[in-house]
Amino acid sequence: MLIRNIFADLPVEVDCEHFETLLECVNFKLERIVSHGQATTEGEWYDQGHDEWVILLKGSAGLLIEGEDEIRQLMPGDYLFLPAHLRHRVEWTHAEGETVWLALHDQAHRLSVLSPPLQKGG
Amino acid sequence: MLIRNIFADLPVEVDCEHFETLLECVNFKLERIVSHGQATTEGEWYDQGHDEWVILLKGSAGLLIEGEDEIRQLMPGDYLFLPAHLRHRVEWTHAEGETVWLALHDQAHRLSVLSPPLQKGG
Repeated sequence: MLIRNIFADLPVEVDCEHFETLLECVNFKLERIVSHGQATTEGEWYDQGHDEWVILLKGSAGLLIEGEDEIRQLMPGDYLFLPAHLRHRVEWTHAEGETVWLALHDQAHRLSVLSPPLQKGG
Repeated sequence: MLIRNIFADLPVEVDCEHFETLLECVNFKLERIVSHGQATTEGEWYDQGHDEWVILLKGSAGLLIEGEDEIRQLMPGDYLFLPAHLRHRVEWTHAEGETVWLALHDQAHRLSVLSPPLQKGG
């Protein structure tokens, strides 16, 4: 049986974000993302045509959702569901060391939330 | 935006394993599993009709694959792909505290591995 570790084989090149597809099928894609202090370009937003579920596993990040006043700070273990076309930005990722994300992209556009997330903080 | 933490709201009942569906769609299901020292019943095997991708996020576990001599020890961050009908057993989970897993079940039976995992250890 083949076993890997999500925190192993981290890229040494810190000038860019690294995307690695761990699994892909017709309807979804599972991806590891490693950031090194990167943020979404100023003035730009992610506006995806598909639903995404994402968990931060190492490091930290600041996430801004369009229409919200405050940047949400994500710590290890924090996860959220981003419906298609919910515009959002990564304002910052931890400047020291790696920030590791696991992202599940629904490519069938049929993702539904069974377990409504609890609100964190205020 | 609603954010939860995978390590929060852990069940207090330690006499059983707890399964929580985080997301479900037509083709896949994402599940948090919390174990408290549980193991697969002696002499029994998991023999699933679907592919599964699983990552251990907290605690530790011993996994035995049918036909292998050695139990594989899983530590936080370790993940693997379990094709349908690959018979396997959880020999043990950490006796103290929780072992937290994130499991992605492919319900479309069409999962394919793009990125072949590296062998861990020997």
